[in-house]
Amino acid sequence: MTTEPAAVIDAAPLGTTMRALVKETAAPGAAVREVPIPEPGPTELLVRIEAASVCGTDVHIERWDPWAQENFGPPPMIFGHEMAGTVVARGPGVTRIAVGETVAAETHFVDWTCYQCRTGRAHVCQNMRILGVHVPGTFAQYTVIPEVNAWAYEGIAPEIAALQEPLGNAVFAAFVEEVAGQTAMVTGCGPIGLMSIAVLKKAGARAVFATDLNPERMAMAERMGADLVLDARDDVVGRLRQETDGNGVDIVLEMSGSSDALHQGLAAVTNGGRVSLLGTHSVPATIDLSQEVIFKAIRIYGITGRRLWDTWYRTTALLEEGLDLTPIITHRLPLADYAHAFDLVASGHAGKIVLLPQEEQL
Amino acid sequence: MTTEPAAVIDAAPLGTTMRALVKETAAPGAAVREVPIPEPGPTELLVRIEAASVCGTDVHIERWDPWAQENFGPPPMIFGHEMAGTVVARGPGVTRIAVGETVAAETHFVDWTCYQCRTGRAHVCQNMRILGVHVPGTFAQYTVIPEVNAWAYEGIAPEIAALQEPLGNAVFAAFVEEVAGQTAMVTGCGPIGLMSIAVLKKAGARAVFATDLNPERMAMAERMGADLVLDARDDVVGRLRQETDGNGVDIVLEMSGSSDALHQGLAAVTNGGRVSLLGTHSVPATIDLSQEVIFKAIRIYGITGRRLWDTWYRTTALLEEGLDLTPIITHRLPLADYAHAFDLVASGHAGKIVLLPQEEQL
Amino acid sequence: MTTEPAAVIDAAPLGTTMRALVKETAAPGAAVREVPIPEPGPTELLVRIEAASVCGTDVHIERWDPWAQENFGPPPMIFGHEMAGTVVARGPGVTRIAVGETVAAETHFVDWTCYQCRTGRAHVCQNMRILGVHVPGTFAQYTVIPEVNAWAYEGIAPEIAALQEPLGNAVFAAFVEEVAGQTAMVTGCGPIGLMSIAVLKKAGARAVFATDLNPERMAMAERMGADLVLDARDDVVGRLRQETDGNGVDIVLEMSGSSDALHQGLAAVTNGGRVSLLGTHSVPATIDLSQEVIFKAIRIYGITGRRLWDTWYRTTALLEEGLDLTPIITHRLPLADYAHAFDLVASGHAGKIVLLPQEEQL
Amino acid sequence: MTTEPAAVIDAAPLGTTMRALVKETAAPGAAVREVPIPEPGPTELLVRIEAASVCGTDVHIERWDPWAQENFGPPPMIFGHEMAGTVVARGPGVTRIAVGETVAAETHFVDWTCYQCRTGRAHVCQNMRILGVHVPGTFAQYTVIPEVNAWAYEGIAPEIAALQEPLGNAVFAAFVEEVAGQTAMVTGCGPIGLMSIAVLKKAGARAVFATDLNPERMAMAERMGADLVLDARDDVVGRLRQETDGNGVDIVLEMSGSSDALHQGLAAVTNGGRVSLLGTHSVPATIDLSQEVIFKAIRIYGITGRRLWDTWYRTTALLEEGLDLTPIITHRLPLADYAHAFDLVASGHAGKIVLLPQEEQL
Repeated sequence: MTTEPAAVIDAAPLGTTMRALVKETAAPGAAVREVPIPEPGPTELLVRIEAASVCGTDVHIERWDPWAQENFGPPPMIFGHEMAGTVVARGPGVTRIAVGETVAAETHFVDWTCYQCRTGRAHVCQNMRILGVHVPGTFAQYTVIPEVNAWAYEGIAPEIAALQEPLGNAVFAAFVEEVAGQTAMVTGCGPIGLMSIAVLKKAGARAVFATDLNPERMAMAERMGADLVLDARDDVVGRLRQETDGNGVDIVLEMSGSSDALHQGLAAVTNGGRVSLLGTHSVPATIDLSQEVIFKAIRIYGITGRRLWDTWYRTTALLEEGLDLTPIITHRLPLADYAHAFDLVASGHAGKIVLLPQEEQL
Repeated sequence: MTTEPAAVIDAAPLGTTMRALVKETAAPGAAVREVPIPEPGPTELLVRIEAASVCGTDVHIERWDPWAQENFGPPPMIFGHEMAGTVVARGPGVTRIAVGETVAAETHFVDWTCYQCRTGRAHVCQNMRILGVHVPGTFAQYTVIPEVNAWAYEGIAPEIAALQEPLGNAVFAAFVEEVAGQTAMVTGCGPIGLMSIAVLKKAGARAVFATDLNPERMAMAERMGADLVLDARDDVVGRLRQETDGNGVDIVLEMSGSSDALHQGLAAVTNGGRVSLLGTHSVPATIDLSQEVIFKAIRIYGITGRRLWDTWYRTTALLEEGLDLTPIITHRLPLADYAHAFDLVASGHAGKIVLLPQEEQL
Repeated sequence: MTTEPAAVIDAAPLGTTMRALVKETAAPGAAVREVPIPEPGPTELLVRIEAASVCGTDVHIERWDPWAQENFGPPPMIFGHEMAGTVVARGPGVTRIAVGETVAAETHFVDWTCYQCRTGRAHVCQNMRILGVHVPGTFAQYTVIPEVNAWAYEGIAPEIAALQEPLGNAVFAAFVEEVAGQTAMVTGCGPIGLMSIAVLKKAGARAVFATDLNPERMAMAERMGADLVLDARDDVVGRLRQETDGNGVDIVLEMSGSSDALHQGLAAVTNGGRVSLLGTHSVPATIDLSQEVIFKAIRIYGITGRRLWDTWYRTTALLEEGLDLTPIITHRLPLADYAHAFDLVASGHAGKIVLLPQEEQL
Repeated sequence: MTTEPAAVIDAAPLGTTMRALVKETAAPGAAVREVPIPEPGPTELLVRIEAASVCGTDVHIERWDPWAQENFGPPPMIFGHEMAGTVVARGPGVTRIAVGETVAAETHFVDWTCYQCRTGRAHVCQNMRILGVHVPGTFAQYTVIPEVNAWAYEGIAPEIAALQEPLGNAVFAAFVEEVAGQTAMVTGCGPIGLMSIAVLKKAGARAVFATDLNPERMAMAERMGADLVLDARDDVVGRLRQETDGNGVDIVLEMSGSSDALHQGLAAVTNGGRVSLLGTHSVPATIDLSQEVIFKAIRIYGITGRRLWDTWYRTTALLEEGLDLTPIITHRLPLADYAHAFDLVASGHAGKIVLLPQEEQL
């Protein structure tokens, strides 16, 4: 690494301004504003954002719910974190990524020195900062990320490349243990649940069963390759026992954050099977540990983030091998339509929505 | 295997009677009775019981709590399951174990043909029957067990040999992942918790921290080798953070069945650490899955029984290497003193109690 | 299990004779003979063979090479082991499999009582007997197998069902560690190598590279889905480095038994990667352990048989999910054409050959 | 990280000279010279060496054998790599380690950006540089290491602290799979073999068997806690079968680099067991892969370096828990006695030799 004292920019739109979606105050709402284009630090990249997809977290921030109040900012700050774009400038200490390369962002900025980071678990770094939550985000024409957080990609459309971050969640949740030849249940067909269906099928799962309450999402689950999609209000457990010779499913991926879904998963999983928890639970769950966990001898994995960088390598590989996320993307909107985008996500009448910061409002 | 139609007994006290502790009716209580000595089936062993230790389950059965009402029997039936003794007769299809050998019992009788049994998870067989719960047990001078459930041992005192079954629980809970060089917390210093302290130390744990509310048990935890024993009412989490450079513990073994202890364990475990649940929870636990499990990316293992037979091999090995359980045994009583034994267990003023069925009342 | 003294046959062609391929003497050759139909023991099944595929081992036996001289028989004995058929009779102790069910055979008969069998490694039982090698085999109209070795299947053509046994080898070799999103090299495109290509693709491998010297096999490798098939005489290692961004492959499956192929695999595997050895080496290999194994920190797995029964479950699952073995089957022949079949296998001008014992010579 | 342009030294003996053992030319030999004290770069530490132990590698360098000719230097360069000392100055980008802290060195300097480094396998980085082999080493009064390679320790004597690096080799080799309750064989009682005996015992191995040809080393193996030490010329395999109920050992750690020892290990390991290879083989080994590896279904692990940083955490923990390496240290010598030290190592009449660079010749 060089030790030049100041950032040397190879090429850049610096000094000018950009459009960005800013959380301006500690209250509901947000606004598109013209703000200065940020300058990369010594080991950072300036990236022109070509696609920035919307995560449920972004809606929490816009709506300013208790989680956002406790974790975000402080305002005013740009939010958004899922992204893909092109490097347009870099600090003097950057060595691996060149200007002109296309990159997605690992959105968890970790310290690389804590116990977790030094033992292969950087995804639960003790000093984590998250892009678009603790540091300025990606609902903007440009953003700055550390070089170490940039994942260079080639030959992927920006809207798909931006989805690598949530796809990585699905990959991590699915691949904590082997998948090939196993039966799996996905509870909750939001975007990450939908992606996980495709991941499981690509990895040779014997059968993938999906549940949800929303007919639009259930239809998407079928398009993503689920062998059977069930309304969670039906006798899901009975049906899955039937489909699995009475054994129950080998794998449960809990993607809904719903206690009801969790209990269905715990009832449906075979003795000695495994459950990945990824859906965020906003209220505590009441679990009969003896009957639902201990006497069934199951393994439960808390899943957050992505394994650095194993998950990214495998995510890229699955895309290369033809894993298709396009059925999930239901809307592509300019930044100015953010309010519509957030309403759609909140309503459940959308799959994945991609904001296109370089496009003017239609 | 031979196909001789009837049990050929090599040597035996058959045709006579024995003393046994019988759960006579579907109500609290039990009674020592003279009953016929059972006859082994074609692939079964008749064992003269030299030691039968008391498990919390036995107290549930004697007190006839809801769990017992739902699971036991039906009465009248002998109960008890932890045991060690000498084979005195065997069925004609028995090939591996000889008359005169000393054996302990794997108390889970499994079908060896279900999905779990055929994929290395016989401890969660779909058609499990448990000795002393579903079939006649070991609080008796003699009992019958399948040959396949007999674990032959040599050079171990009967009272220790009987403890191999619960020790196996502790070994299984501790060894689901590696132990050497890791910090561990044991919540709950009942007999299995106490055993797990010794197991962890024997396996090279960096430090073992134990919690309980009962001063007698806390004193026993120290005798079993715990590096630090804490009153669960104190600031356990703060103290353990301090003891672990702020990282939290790598391993939690939840041995109490208490929600409070579980929450302390989930708070104390390091990000990306692992938790084994073995203590039976009689009421559901309310868990903040997002904060306690998902964002910490921990792994939770439901633990029941013992892995057949890996756990038994490793349990034997630890005893051979000098793991000492004698500090746990606080009482050795004849069968007739069963009521005193159960009262002691229920009161918490005992470690492990061993009944000696061959001894007359003192 | 019942204890009736004699085998009770539910239905059967007993007492009559059948055609079978018999290794008659300790010398090259074999002969089709009329022999008595065998009678199942108490816990055995009599199976009418509908397909019996030819393994390289069978050729060794027919040719009477040193391995056969040391391991087979003794003659006279029927050989052959890969098979699928219908249960036509069963012993009185049989409980799980009914007459009329279709079954394939796990060809390794294990004792279920040795250290390996009791610790999840029955595939390396210390007292293994192999069907068609140590006990009479399956190149016959009927054979007898232990019930415990029968794998019931439904909805699979007999010629494919017979291939489940070698397919299990491929599945075991591939699945000792995770496959999805990883690059893999298969050295040797004999039948098991070809199957492993399909297995790896089905399990989401990022890319599968295959090598061989035989153009017919190389063409079959492409039909099985290999991304790239290379002549082993070319610069395989250089090409694979190129195909993997200079990293080398994550997985090597050595299926040839050739030292040259092994060295290519060890050179091509990425640092910290893994190598499964399945191809039988008839002569010792000379390995630079420091450079090829230690300084690369690779893991080498010796693979034999199939994991009981995990491998069978996963093998069945892959077939259900559409894994297609038909491109491998190049010949279907009546028993009488055995000599032609063995010549074809020995010549390398065949994929898999299936003998059809119920068919008269054409 | 700060971006100050030049190294700011907190405290230091810079500008003066130090004694160092220098490999001066591409020929056998070395010499103690007065050389300038090196200056730490922006992210580096200057360490005053208090103990520098001698590794076999150092002897290869001094003797200038083919391996050294191919890998070292180029001369003139200081060699030596195992060390412990006190930080006396640091570059301006150093953030974690303070002047005054005591540190040992992870001697493998990796790039943190290659495929291996980004997937948890930095110990086989594609661009590894080794302290004392590719960059100036530690047989000197001072040395410079990257901050990221410094392992801070407290409360350990320098001579033991220096041994953490080779101890880490032993820990890594032993802990690639679980140890507690398993039987183990260590072939070769050089320093790392001796350490691994203590590691295995500390981690609860059921029994540790050691082999060597050298009576002095065999005596040390007993002092390190081996349950049985055998002369490798005796019937080792027969004896170990006897000691393990005929099963063979679960674990083999090959620490000798001898083909004969390897074959004994492969013969002694139980079916389905595991073998760690760490001893460097100077000539290729001839292995009957079918009989020694495949049909036994064993796993072979190439071991090099230490897992970053899991191995270091566990190594520290074992020392804290009382693992005692002092019986291994047979000589403590000033730098000037280097020739005597190397002769002793080459002769096999030494355990571990520690050079003390701050001491004048006696």
